[in-house]
Amino acid sequence: MDRPRHQGMVKNTYMRWRLPLVCLLWEVAMIVLFGVFVRFGPEADAHWEEEKQELNLTSDMENDFYFRYPSFQDVHVMIFVGFGFLMTFLKRYGFGAVGFNFLLAAFGIQWALLMQGWFHSFKNGKILIGVENLINADFCVGSVCIAFGAILGKTSPIQLLVMTLFQVTLFSVNEYILLNLLHVKDAGGSMTIHTFGAYFGLTVTRILYRPNLEQSKDKQGSVYHSDLFAMIGTLYLWMYWPSFNSAISEHGDAQHRSAINTYCSLAACVLTTMAFSSMLQKKGKLDMVHIQNATLAGGVAVGTSAEMMLTPYGSLIVGSISGIVSTVGYVYFTPFLESRLHIQDTCGIHNLHAMPGLIGGIVGAITAAAATEDVYGKEGFIKAFDFTGVYQTRTPSVQGGFQAAGIVVSLLMAFVGGAIVGGILKLPIWGDAAAENCFEDEVYWEVPEDEESDVYHMHNPDKPTSP
Amino acid sequence: MDRPRHQGMVKNTYMRWRLPLVCLLWEVAMIVLFGVFVRFGPEADAHWEEEKQELNLTSDMENDFYFRYPSFQDVHVMIFVGFGFLMTFLKRYGFGAVGFNFLLAAFGIQWALLMQGWFHSFKNGKILIGVENLINADFCVGSVCIAFGAILGKTSPIQLLVMTLFQVTLFSVNEYILLNLLHVKDAGGSMTIHTFGAYFGLTVTRILYRPNLEQSKDKQGSVYHSDLFAMIGTLYLWMYWPSFNSAISEHGDAQHRSAINTYCSLAACVLTTMAFSSMLQKKGKLDMVHIQNATLAGGVAVGTSAEMMLTPYGSLIVGSISGIVSTVGYVYFTPFLESRLHIQDTCGIHNLHAMPGLIGGIVGAITAAAATEDVYGKEGFIKAFDFTGVYQTRTPSVQGGFQAAGIVVSLLMAFVGGAIVGGILKLPIWGDAAAENCFEDEVYWEVPEDEESDVYHMHNPDKPTSP
Amino acid sequence: MDRPRHQGMVKNTYMRWRLPLVCLLWEVAMIVLFGVFVRFGPEADAHWEEEKQELNLTSDMENDFYFRYPSFQDVHVMIFVGFGFLMTFLKRYGFGAVGFNFLLAAFGIQWALLMQGWFHSFKNGKILIGVENLINADFCVGSVCIAFGAILGKTSPIQLLVMTLFQVTLFSVNEYILLNLLHVKDAGGSMTIHTFGAYFGLTVTRILYRPNLEQSKDKQGSVYHSDLFAMIGTLYLWMYWPSFNSAISEHGDAQHRSAINTYCSLAACVLTTMAFSSMLQKKGKLDMVHIQNATLAGGVAVGTSAEMMLTPYGSLIVGSISGIVSTVGYVYFTPFLESRLHIQDTCGIHNLHAMPGLIGGIVGAITAAAATEDVYGKEGFIKAFDFTGVYQTRTPSVQGGFQAAGIVVSLLMAFVGGAIVGGILKLPIWGDAAAENCFEDEVYWEVPEDEESDVYHMHNPDKPTSP
Repeated sequence: MDRPRHQGMVKNTYMRWRLPLVCLLWEVAMIVLFGVFVRFGPEADAHWEEEKQELNLTSDMENDFYFRYPSFQDVHVMIFVGFGFLMTFLKRYGFGAVGFNFLLAAFGIQWALLMQGWFHSFKNGKILIGVENLINADFCVGSVCIAFGAILGKTSPIQLLVMTLFQVTLFSVNEYILLNLLHVKDAGGSMTIHTFGAYFGLTVTRILYRPNLEQSKDKQGSVYHSDLFAMIGTLYLWMYWPSFNSAISEHGDAQHRSAINTYCSLAACVLTTMAFSSMLQKKGKLDMVHIQNATLAGGVAVGTSAEMMLTPYGSLIVGSISGIVSTVGYVYFTPFLESRLHIQDTCGIHNLHAMPGLIGGIVGAITAAAATEDVYGKEGFIKAFDFTGVYQTRTPSVQGGFQAAGIVVSLLMAFVGGAIVGGILKLPIWGDAAAENCFEDEVYWEVPEDEESDVYHMHNPDKPTSP
Repeated sequence: MDRPRHQGMVKNTYMRWRLPLVCLLWEVAMIVLFGVFVRFGPEADAHWEEEKQELNLTSDMENDFYFRYPSFQDVHVMIFVGFGFLMTFLKRYGFGAVGFNFLLAAFGIQWALLMQGWFHSFKNGKILIGVENLINADFCVGSVCIAFGAILGKTSPIQLLVMTLFQVTLFSVNEYILLNLLHVKDAGGSMTIHTFGAYFGLTVTRILYRPNLEQSKDKQGSVYHSDLFAMIGTLYLWMYWPSFNSAISEHGDAQHRSAINTYCSLAACVLTTMAFSSMLQKKGKLDMVHIQNATLAGGVAVGTSAEMMLTPYGSLIVGSISGIVSTVGYVYFTPFLESRLHIQDTCGIHNLHAMPGLIGGIVGAITAAAATEDVYGKEGFIKAFDFTGVYQTRTPSVQGGFQAAGIVVSLLMAFVGGAIVGGILKLPIWGDAAAENCFEDEVYWEVPEDEESDVYHMHNPDKPTSP
Repeated sequence: MDRPRHQGMVKNTYMRWRLPLVCLLWEVAMIVLFGVFVRFGPEADAHWEEEKQELNLTSDMENDFYFRYPSFQDVHVMIFVGFGFLMTFLKRYGFGAVGFNFLLAAFGIQWALLMQGWFHSFKNGKILIGVENLINADFCVGSVCIAFGAILGKTSPIQLLVMTLFQVTLFSVNEYILLNLLHVKDAGGSMTIHTFGAYFGLTVTRILYRPNLEQSKDKQGSVYHSDLFAMIGTLYLWMYWPSFNSAISEHGDAQHRSAINTYCSLAACVLTTMAFSSMLQKKGKLDMVHIQNATLAGGVAVGTSAEMMLTPYGSLIVGSISGIVSTVGYVYFTPFLESRLHIQDTCGIHNLHAMPGLIGGIVGAITAAAATEDVYGKEGFIKAFDFTGVYQTRTPSVQGGFQAAGIVVSLLMAFVGGAIVGGILKLPIWGDAAAENCFEDEVYWEVPEDEESDVYHMHNPDKPTSP
């Protein structure tokens, strides 16, 4: 299994020295950089006792921790259990799905704390972190988990770590351009997380195109229980998405509103997904692939606008449309992308993140452009779009234009960045598996030899048993 | 599989046009009704910035969002993961359990926001929603999930959607009668959610009685891993039940007290369930059916009284009793209900929700009747039972009487409503499966053809393989 | 299966009267003791309405419920789903892992509320409980869940209940000595929970040494899906550990800081675990045992110091080291402990809790000893270490000494207590199984006879089928 030789290809998937080296070098670098740069922000520092008195705060409750920590924990579950288990649908890649997602996310959040810290929390030579930084690091890593969905089963853990390094960097640059230079609103990350993450991943998988992937066709499907494991991921993503979209919104009504809009959008999305899943199948049966994925499109598609006055019925409309687009995507676009454009998208992130992310960006631009002082109130209007300082004179329609520009920038960053990173990942030094060993945990994992796999081998007599 | 012909019965389970039609029509109706009626409540509206100043609120923390959102997310998990996975215990109905629960709950919360909104949050022609409405919508749908437990595996998705439509409506009417007309306290829903939901479901399944259900007897059991999946549901229901019972209690001590009472009741319930599960088996072994279900009865049985001064030891007593009643129910009542009363109760909701719900209603009535100013404090007494306005002169014993009346009303609504809805669901147009195809995902779902099911077929040579 | 006779050993595993008797007697005792002693604390009592006015509190938000309830729920999930599912990795002991953990934890939290209440919340003859007591009860039970890991699969449920009774008692005494007599800080319980719990469990399993355990060797492994179930436990422990370590820290910056330190430590721990898992395997493949367990060592190892000014890079260092130590432990120490010291540690708690717990205690002592007013601020310094009252004159270095003493006391309590309890558990009256029936659910559970187990039997023709 380690060094299979078929059809003239020799792939060395032996990880013993390469993976530890990358992990340990990286971790040492993190410790050094954290030592130089990262300190507790004022609300997590023991000096807060005194600062609190200076600020005349009467209650510890005013600490940002209590505004955001419950949402942070929900987001944390989405990244590790949500994305991790969503990808366990493959019959023989559950360890890789959960385990590599765990690795790259733990790897990514440290680097994201630094990258985002330099851009947004840098004061007097130090990055000052608090709970909002933890959420943003999780968000940043979310975009890597999305990209992982496209290349799931086809890459080595080292490739994933290398991709994470670059993608987190590019994410942070793109985020800085959008939030600070274009002054765009994107609390739930339709553009920064989903559009960028998905098109980045799709570009990478395009570069890594494997012409002989049908050799592992038998392992690309699910089994009954792997589909149930995947539903754990789906449901946690679905349930906690209101927390995701509201986690870093302004305190008070904005967080409240984001949660309501997302709740409504997701509910509507389930119905249209079920409808189209049944409608597009000759036998009229429901397809677990759609239920596991397209039901989540509603959360993606209100990512930008959830904290705006989208209104509950606006959310229902957006959710309904995105469920339809996403399900149609699974039935028609995914096969097309593979056969015509050579984009092999294992989890269908084009349907779950790319298209709904674009919808989300556009809906955000429209909602921003349509904002009025009447709808938001005089104070609320300024607060909702941060029309203060140099942006005091910006009008809603100009804001809408900048929002739209944010989509374009995210797409460009994703295509260019994905192409470069894809090129790097194509180097023959990272230990990826041969086409016939894709989607197979035994390449990188000790897999238990048990009854179940006896049966498995029994039905696959030509499959080599591991030594 | 789609159009089986056995014993003269022809059942058309083909969903291709019917299911999409129902889903899409419904969603369009929701969008229209939300567009006409639903708006953000004051705490989720951008005008809150100004309102906050008028109300002299010094902190965004006073937004109801921060009092209730963590509990809301726990309740949300209970509805979708809790109920969904609890029902995955069947060996070949995991997709249906999780998937149809997902569908009907997403369907139901939208309609519940409207129905409950018209009754409770209607101002100047608009329904104004906030986080408490989201919790209440989840609660309402919880009663549908309960009823689903009785008919699990025997109905088509369309029947479930039709049942949801009617049950949410009836739930809202019943809730209005109890909370507004009888001025009854029922924060955790022993009466409104559990008693109503369970007897409604039991009535429906009685009407839909299937005399030949033993034809699918082999599929009514569990397999090893399906029992573990079900334990995920059980544990999330058990752990988050303190949030369920406290989610809409008054801010402060009432929420705090509800959580403690529920925690205690559930802990006690586990011990008596284990005791009776072992005691009632000839071989003295524990039965997963009891552990999965009866351990939760303690949460149901303090639903009404948790926010009252039930006291921790009172909670232990209630929890202990309900665990015993529920386990005894599984061993003796469920077979009796099926053989004598023709009530086929797939998940045993009579034991988990109906009887403990009645206990909960009764305990609530007693606890209310026994309330004194001494125990609650002068202010606390008035606040706990809302003895203000026209209810200023109501005494605890009168309140106890009204609480008892609430049980009776809930039962009546459940029986009458369940009979009518059962009659509607009996119409031969909804696409339910024949008796021998009950508890089988292949009727409505694309099921992966894999090794595991090869084995399955190997051991079931007469089972038709899907084409 | 109930009364197997092999090799001259007769083991009576029949639970029908013993288990119910223990459970019911215990629960009655709990009800009586709760009735005599336990009442609602002031913040959960209905009199709080009046007390609030006396205290001039302007908001219900000041109720401790809102500071701690979200963290409590996370801790609750860790105890029941985290520990429960972490132990489902065994192929035929999933029911026992989740079910017995459920039983002993529900059993333990009631007794812990009393024991810890007498020591810490006793006023005027009553134990006054609030949300912090619930968290502490969960913490206490956490130490029992840890010890359960060492004896998993080898003990009867009655033995577990007896162990819980004694261990909770000893835990409370040890905790009282540390927190009240030595005035030690240990918010995340590196010493009180992990060091004590693990060495207690290891001593118990040493006393219960089974020389013929290789007779059930075939059942000590995992199967593919049981490893995925275990990952549910792992991830919930990992994700919610920041809540665990911050749950009972002081309001404000201390809770905030604990969460950040734990987040950082855990992230680093994943990388070094993956590195060493691959490095220590000849084939360089990753081992699920390490990923499931050693990735959590970082949370254990900052348990004492998380609320101190450990700083993010300090956390990275501690997390990195503990991941390495833990993984190395699984590869080298566990086999050594079994073959040389006759310590059969099913889950490897020595690697996950004992060694990282010691590291945590030591890091805590060093961090405390290194504290300065400069780093903490004048107010923060006093608050962080409670240097008030009789402790007003304690210096950091003295505090460090007392912290170190806390480790020694915890170890002594664990060894002595574990030896005594192990001796009690060795009595031949508790119904444990013979060596060849260890790690097998069929001894104590009704296990479904299904296709999957047909296959299982098919491949194990000499395995007796249950009657």
